[in-house]
Amino acid sequence: MSIKLRSLIPSLSDKIYFNYGGQGPLPTPSLQKIINSWEKLQKLGPFTNNVWPYIHNEIILTKEILANLMGVNLKNIALSENISTGMVLPLWGIDFLEGDEILISDCEHPGIVAASRELCQRLKLKLNIFPIQKIRHLDDQVIINELKKYLKKNTKILIISHILWNFGYEIPLKQLKHELEKVNKNSYLIVDGAQSFGHIEIKENVRYSDLYAITSHKWACGPEGLGAFYVSDRFIKNTRPTIIGWKSLKKEQGIYEPSENLLHEDARKFEIATSCIPLLAGLRESLSLFAENTSSKEKNKNISIMSNKLWFQLSEFNDVDLVLKYPLKNGIVSFSINKIIDKNKFVKQLGLKNIWIRVIEDPKWFRVCIHQISTEKEIELLINEIKLLI
Amino acid sequence: MSIKLRSLIPSLSDKIYFNYGGQGPLPTPSLQKIINSWEKLQKLGPFTNNVWPYIHNEIILTKEILANLMGVNLKNIALSENISTGMVLPLWGIDFLEGDEILISDCEHPGIVAASRELCQRLKLKLNIFPIQKIRHLDDQVIINELKKYLKKNTKILIISHILWNFGYEIPLKQLKHELEKVNKNSYLIVDGAQSFGHIEIKENVRYSDLYAITSHKWACGPEGLGAFYVSDRFIKNTRPTIIGWKSLKKEQGIYEPSENLLHEDARKFEIATSCIPLLAGLRESLSLFAENTSSKEKNKNISIMSNKLWFQLSEFNDVDLVLKYPLKNGIVSFSINKIIDKNKFVKQLGLKNIWIRVIEDPKWFRVCIHQISTEKEIELLINEIKLLI
Repeated sequence: MSIKLRSLIPSLSDKIYFNYGGQGPLPTPSLQKIINSWEKLQKLGPFTNNVWPYIHNEIILTKEILANLMGVNLKNIALSENISTGMVLPLWGIDFLEGDEILISDCEHPGIVAASRELCQRLKLKLNIFPIQKIRHLDDQVIINELKKYLKKNTKILIISHILWNFGYEIPLKQLKHELEKVNKNSYLIVDGAQSFGHIEIKENVRYSDLYAITSHKWACGPEGLGAFYVSDRFIKNTRPTIIGWKSLKKEQGIYEPSENLLHEDARKFEIATSCIPLLAGLRESLSLFAENTSSKEKNKNISIMSNKLWFQLSEFNDVDLVLKYPLKNGIVSFSINKIIDKNKFVKQLGLKNIWIRVIEDPKWFRVCIHQISTEKEIELLINEIKLLI
Repeated sequence: MSIKLRSLIPSLSDKIYFNYGGQGPLPTPSLQKIINSWEKLQKLGPFTNNVWPYIHNEIILTKEILANLMGVNLKNIALSENISTGMVLPLWGIDFLEGDEILISDCEHPGIVAASRELCQRLKLKLNIFPIQKIRHLDDQVIINELKKYLKKNTKILIISHILWNFGYEIPLKQLKHELEKVNKNSYLIVDGAQSFGHIEIKENVRYSDLYAITSHKWACGPEGLGAFYVSDRFIKNTRPTIIGWKSLKKEQGIYEPSENLLHEDARKFEIATSCIPLLAGLRESLSLFAENTSSKEKNKNISIMSNKLWFQLSEFNDVDLVLKYPLKNGIVSFSINKIIDKNKFVKQLGLKNIWIRVIEDPKWFRVCIHQISTEKEIELLINEIKLLI
C-alpha cells in the first residue's frame, strides 16, 4: 500500500527521508488540488459575488475535517498561517493579572520560549520553567509528580507540547489538565501539537486543552503556510483577540457606527485577514491520501514497529546514547553519538548519501522521524550509514 | 501590449472586471512559477540542508524587488501573510505611555479600525478620529489644515491609507509626516498601502512613514496569503515584536542558555514562522509581467485617461453622485446612485452581465477600479449597463 502512496510523493524518490517533524513531503495529488483550487478561484473570481460561496465552502470543509480529527466542534477551530501564530497570538488576549505565572516546559520550541518571555516582560507576569529534560526515566506518573511541584495558585497558563519535539515523549494531557485545574480553575492549558497532528491519534486529547495548535506542513504532509488551532469555549469567552482583521469581524462596520459586539463569538475571532485559500484543498488531499493508505490503528502499529527496530539497532552501538531508556510507541527516535562533536557536520555527511535526519537545537542531539510511509529498508540504510560514520 | 498580457490572465477571459483593489487576477505564468517553486522545494527538501539556500534566496530576491519598489532598504522589509498582520502586529510592540493617543483617519478599513480600538482599550490609550469623510473638496492643503486641528503632543501614532480605500484620494505622506513630527518627535506614521502598491508609484513616499504595509493579492495581481511591510530604523530600534517565532530569532537558543539579544536587529524581528515560500515566486512573476507590459509613467497616464473617461461619463448621469467633485489621477472611481437603495442587489445585477464592481462598506457606495490592463471597451460596457439599470 505504502509503495503506491510513496510513488505519488516526488521528494521521496531520491531521498532516505526522516524529518517529518521538520517538514513532510507534499504528494503530487495535493499540489494538483492546490492548483485546481487556484484555477477555480480565478474562474469564479478573484473578487466577485460568485467566489464567496466557494471560499466559504473550502473553509467549512477543511474545518469539519480538522474538527473531526481533533474531536472538537467546528466553531472552536480557527485557521492560521503557522503554529507560532496559532499559539502565541491568542495568549496576548488572556485576562492576566499582574503577577500571574506562565509555566512552560523545558522541552518547547525556542520560538514559543522567546514569545513567552516577551509576554511575561511586557505584561509583568512571572515565567517559570517546568523541567522535564532532567528526568531520567520519563513516564506519565513521574511527569505528573514533577509538575505538581511547580503548579501554584497563580499559575495562569501551562505551555507544553503534546509530543515533546526533542524527546518524542507523549504528554498525558488529561492528567495535566486535572492537576492544573486543581490549583487554579481559571488557568489555561496551551498545547503545541506540532509533533502530534498527522503522527498520532489526538481525537481523545485535544479537548483537555484550552488551546491546541497544529500545522499542515509537518507530519500531515500538507502545504506550508497553513495551520489551525482549537480554542475551548471558556478561552473564547474570556479572552480578547489581538491582531484583528476582517476575518475576526461579523460585519465590516463603519467607523461612526456602533463598535460593540463586532467580533465573531467563536474561534474566528482569532483569525485575521486574507490567507491563501488554495492551501486548504492541498491539506485535505494529503489527509485523505494518508488516511486511505493506512487505518489509524495500523498506522500507529507500523510506525512503532519501525521506530522500535531503529531504537534497538541503535542501542547495540556502544557510541550511541539513546535519549530515552526505552523505545516509544510513536515515530520519534532521539539519540546522541558520543564521539560526534560537530553534529551539523554529521547530518551533512549523512545528507551526502541522501539520508536526512535533523539536529534538534534544545538540547542538541539527533532526531529521526519514522512516518507511516517510511520503510524498513530506509531504516536499514540509515543504520548502515551510521555504522560507517562512527 | 495589454492584449497579450490579458491573454495570460484566465479570470479576465469571461469577465468585465473592476475590482483590483479587492483582489487582482493571477496570471497563468505566476501560477506556473508558484508550481515550479513547490516542485523545486520538494526536489531539494522539504527539510534538508540542500533546501535552505533556495529558501533564503527566494526571500532575498523578493525583498530586493520590494525594497526597490518601495524605495527603502532590504533590511527594513518584513514579509507577512496579509496587510492586517503587517500593520497591526507591529503596533502592539510600540513603547506607548498611558494616555498616548492613536489618531486614525475615518477612511480606514474596518479591520484596522477594530484593531485600533482593541489596542486603545487594552493599553489604556486614547483613540481619536481624523475626519476626512466630511471634507467636501479633498485636496492636499485642506487635508493638512484639517489634520493640524487633531494633532496633539500626545499623538503617538497616526494611522492612514496612502490611497483612501473609499475615496481613492492619494494622501500626501511627506507633509503629514512633517506635521506629525512637529507636534511629537516620538510619533509614528502608520500607512496602509492596500490601494497603492501595484497601482501607483510609491518609491518616493514610503520613506516618510514608519510602517507601510502592502499585499501581493490586490493591485499587484500576485497570489493571496502574502504581504510585506516596511518599518523605519527608528521603529525597529524602539519597538518590540509581539508574535515571536523562529523567523524573529537570530538563533534557536536553548531554554537554559542566555536569552538576551536573540531577536534579529532588522525588520525580520517582526516576522513569525513558517510561511508559504512558493507564493514569493508568484508575486515576483506578476510584478515582472506588469512592469514589462507598461512603464510606470505610461501606466499612470493610461489608468488616469481611462478612469477620467469613466468619471466624466458618469458625471453626465443625473442620478449618479460622484463622490469627489473632480476625477483622480489614479484608477479609483467612487460613486453613489441616488435611486439605488439596495447597493448589493445592484452589484449582483451587474454581475449577471459579468461586470464586477464592489460596494465599499464605509461609507456605503460603489467603487470601480481601473487597472493598467483595463480597456476602454470595458468602461463602455460598464457605462452602458449602468445606463440600462438606472
